[in-house]
Amino acid sequence: MADTTAILLGVFIIFAAAQVGGAVARGLRLPDVVGQIVAGCIVGPSVFGWIAPSEPLEVLSEIGVVLLLFAVGLETRLEDVKRVGGSAFAVGVIGVVVPFVGGAFWAHALEPDWPHSLFVAAAFVATSAGITAAVLKQMGALRRTESRVILGAAVIDDILAMLLLGVVVAIQAGGPLRVGRLLVVAGEAIGFVLVVGWFGTLMMRRGAKWLERTRDPMSPLLVVLVLCLGLAWIATRFGLAAIIGAFLAGMIASETRQRAQLEEQMQPLLALLTPFFFVLTGAKVELARLATGHALWLLLIATLLALGTKLVGGWLGALRLGPRSALIVGVGMMPRGEVGIVVAALGLSAGVFGDLMYAVIIAMSLLTSVIAPPFLAVLLKARNPAIVNRGSEAS
Amino acid sequence: MADTTAILLGVFIIFAAAQVGGAVARGLRLPDVVGQIVAGCIVGPSVFGWIAPSEPLEVLSEIGVVLLLFAVGLETRLEDVKRVGGSAFAVGVIGVVVPFVGGAFWAHALEPDWPHSLFVAAAFVATSAGITAAVLKQMGALRRTESRVILGAAVIDDILAMLLLGVVVAIQAGGPLRVGRLLVVAGEAIGFVLVVGWFGTLMMRRGAKWLERTRDPMSPLLVVLVLCLGLAWIATRFGLAAIIGAFLAGMIASETRQRAQLEEQMQPLLALLTPFFFVLTGAKVELARLATGHALWLLLIATLLALGTKLVGGWLGALRLGPRSALIVGVGMMPRGEVGIVVAALGLSAGVFGDLMYAVIIAMSLLTSVIAPPFLAVLLKARNPAIVNRGSEAS
Repeated sequence: MADTTAILLGVFIIFAAAQVGGAVARGLRLPDVVGQIVAGCIVGPSVFGWIAPSEPLEVLSEIGVVLLLFAVGLETRLEDVKRVGGSAFAVGVIGVVVPFVGGAFWAHALEPDWPHSLFVAAAFVATSAGITAAVLKQMGALRRTESRVILGAAVIDDILAMLLLGVVVAIQAGGPLRVGRLLVVAGEAIGFVLVVGWFGTLMMRRGAKWLERTRDPMSPLLVVLVLCLGLAWIATRFGLAAIIGAFLAGMIASETRQRAQLEEQMQPLLALLTPFFFVLTGAKVELARLATGHALWLLLIATLLALGTKLVGGWLGALRLGPRSALIVGVGMMPRGEVGIVVAALGLSAGVFGDLMYAVIIAMSLLTSVIAPPFLAVLLKARNPAIVNRGSEAS
Repeated sequence: MADTTAILLGVFIIFAAAQVGGAVARGLRLPDVVGQIVAGCIVGPSVFGWIAPSEPLEVLSEIGVVLLLFAVGLETRLEDVKRVGGSAFAVGVIGVVVPFVGGAFWAHALEPDWPHSLFVAAAFVATSAGITAAVLKQMGALRRTESRVILGAAVIDDILAMLLLGVVVAIQAGGPLRVGRLLVVAGEAIGFVLVVGWFGTLMMRRGAKWLERTRDPMSPLLVVLVLCLGLAWIATRFGLAAIIGAFLAGMIASETRQRAQLEEQMQPLLALLTPFFFVLTGAKVELARLATGHALWLLLIATLLALGTKLVGGWLGALRLGPRSALIVGVGMMPRGEVGIVVAALGLSAGVFGDLMYAVIIAMSLLTSVIAPPFLAVLLKARNPAIVNRGSEAS
């Protein structure tokens, strides 16, 4: 019984803090997510210590971001992503290579040990699609070309980040680099995305009629939620992030005629559950460990490097859309969030780096998640809405 | 990463199993919850073992039943409960006394040791409001007089069950029975319910206008969800079930003008989260331990006793509504569910009873939850709808 009390208190604090943080952020004309992440930092161990990340809260957070990316997929048609496939691919690849190389050289300058440096560099690689997707969604910008490029690139980014992580872990452990095994892993992941994306949407387009025969207005939602949770799980089995599976499920569901109704029904689910993702993201930073001049200096450099390399990588990849759109894409790719945190945790538990580097990498991941959204919001507002590609509405 | 995969798999299996179980139950003209509980028994450790109750899944279950009782409260006006206050009080009190006395004598016949017998008897006491509320809600019967009596009685039932549990734990532990302390606990719990119920609805009726000034259609939902989670937590601090706080929060929110909109927005939340409560309830039974003639015989007697005593107690308490309504109330009070499980777990960990009695009490709790809903559904359908008290609609 005491357990229930403690967990319900955590749930209440996170949810209430998210509302307050979101309201303050809106007052400051910042995206909600910034306020929610900062609120998490304040109620978390760094400041008040009212909540601490725990497994039950992590599950709520995971379901929250899975549903968010599902809802984002729901506003994204496969056709539209295919149309920007070349740019998305370029952004995904160059946006991984530039931060990885930059991170590796920086880490090597700090400590001349290549396996260690490559491990640190891996933390600079992966974009956190959740943060950017929330901002794009809140601003009603999901149908813009740049958003599609960002979302397509995020899928490629995640595949490459997974492979890269496999490589650096193998190098660090000193084991042989099994290229054949890596190729199989890569092939499986790419195959999963292609099969689910192409085949799933095709099936749904042809077979969506049976969804219309149900009388209960909740039935289509229940069916697509089963699809969403199922693909989220399968994605993790292929080494990908759960949100990739959820995003694909959303794209498949966007082919149904209930799309508008589903978008409407997703709103309360997102309102309840996404705050857990953003607040817990903020709660993971540990300010106490960063309270030295040296640590803050390291953090400053790491953050600037992370922002700069991803901006350049994304910008270069998206240049064919024009310099301004390329800038939006570059900024949209900047948030790191959870993958940086995973790499940091792996590095700490493997003894590759100490408490300081761990705290710096986590704080860097979060700083990029807080810094990028305001810039993205300003750029999206300033953009001439006449050029917006609205796509075909199906409501 | 592996953890995420395992938990996502559990989430997916539970959600998918609930849909299948619900659909089968509807096909058999049974309430959805019966199908979901049985589905939980099948995917749980008893049969396939695909899922096992774990802390993260318990949190989803707890949030699911909290939201369910919040939604039930949203369809219940304080005025309407007050009108049936006398019957609700009588049902609550007599519905606790009869099962407690019956359970104590049965247990004493098995093992003549009063502290032990009273502990077993405590498992017979508390009604599981979640099960009955789900059936009443699915059948659109929440505005009927009997439903209001059941819900009011469930609040009183929970207060008494908490006090009784305190008493039997103290007696069993052999410590002094501190009557003064118990009176304080009782006073606090009753005070919490009264203050929140009366004062909360009064405040909301007067101050609801500021909710209407918000432009975002999600804002009222977010405000009342903060209230719901907050009161659910505070209720547990007073020794009550979280669902009592959530139910009161729902009654408060029912005073707002956004009530109809809130009910609509709660639908997707209930669709996603309540299955975790019902499936996990079913997953807790351990059929293997019941696979002897002696165990099944014990279970049969315990279940009949639990059903009969609660039926008689509820029926006696509600007699002034007429015999048929009293029957509906009695059947509505029959499900035991989670409180029986809590008592069983307490008794096992305190060494009061062994594995067999533990398994019997849990199975009895679940059987009552599966047996009562079909009878309730039949009785509600057969009842003359002309007598239904619809109350004032505020949509």
